[in-house]
Amino acid sequence: MSGAALHPQLLADCHHLGALSRCEVLLQRNAALHWFILVPRTALQDVLDLPPHERNEVLAECAAVSAFLKQVLGYTKVNVAGLGNVVPDMHLHVIGRSAGDPAWPQPVWGNLAEGGAYSGEQLESLQAGLARMTGMLPVPIQAP
Amino acid sequence: MSGAALHPQLLADCHHLGALSRCEVLLQRNAALHWFILVPRTALQDVLDLPPHERNEVLAECAAVSAFLKQVLGYTKVNVAGLGNVVPDMHLHVIGRSAGDPAWPQPVWGNLAEGGAYSGEQLESLQAGLARMTGMLPVPIQAP
Repeated sequence: MSGAALHPQLLADCHHLGALSRCEVLLQRNAALHWFILVPRTALQDVLDLPPHERNEVLAECAAVSAFLKQVLGYTKVNVAGLGNVVPDMHLHVIGRSAGDPAWPQPVWGNLAEGGAYSGEQLESLQAGLARMTGMLPVPIQAP
Repeated sequence: MSGAALHPQLLADCHHLGALSRCEVLLQRNAALHWFILVPRTALQDVLDLPPHERNEVLAECAAVSAFLKQVLGYTKVNVAGLGNVVPDMHLHVIGRSAGDPAWPQPVWGNLAEGGAYSGEQLESLQAGLARMTGMLPVPIQAP
């Protein structure tokens, strides 16, 4: 999936970091906390409608990103969600949480103040870490 | 898992409807929309930390409840989430959504006004439907 196939709202809100076997890997531009969005390559909209083997593989990719959040970035908790009420294309939120983070203990949606932007160096470091830990193939970072 | 093993906050917020192979099945008391909560029997807190075969089985149970929401209750969309920032015991939200519902298009957390209570008859009907479609074993409904 090229960036052009990603929903424009996701591209506006996120950096496109790379590709896993089943999902594109995006990162919310708000750097208040690490909030990844995995976009499975499917025409279906709800993750629980996927055939079981695809669902299992998509969730395994979410689990790999979750492990990166905990083991490399040091988060104590990970929130995961498939909502898609605003952007219909299937996408899964995989969000690093810690007691006392800017939205704690609320869910992030509607509760996360702007927390600055990632530098190019930070994005490249995240790409390299995800490549090592999850096998993600990085894509060139696009200017905002 | 008896009701006594469920977190008191979950029991305060929900009706305990029954048991699947991996999860207890709860229903939020707010009847504004059908909002199920599945509680896997595990000491872990984050669903993405489960071993793969357990994760797959828990998600299969979520998918069965999602199919019930769409095929029997007529919802067009299902939101699924594992958060647990307030109640640490692992639990998964499986929520029937439709364009124009009382929280649409926001996520339900913090955005769903009180929408009345389920009658005993409605709860028994949901139990019977879930038993037929998902194999859930009903438990006696407790008074609030």
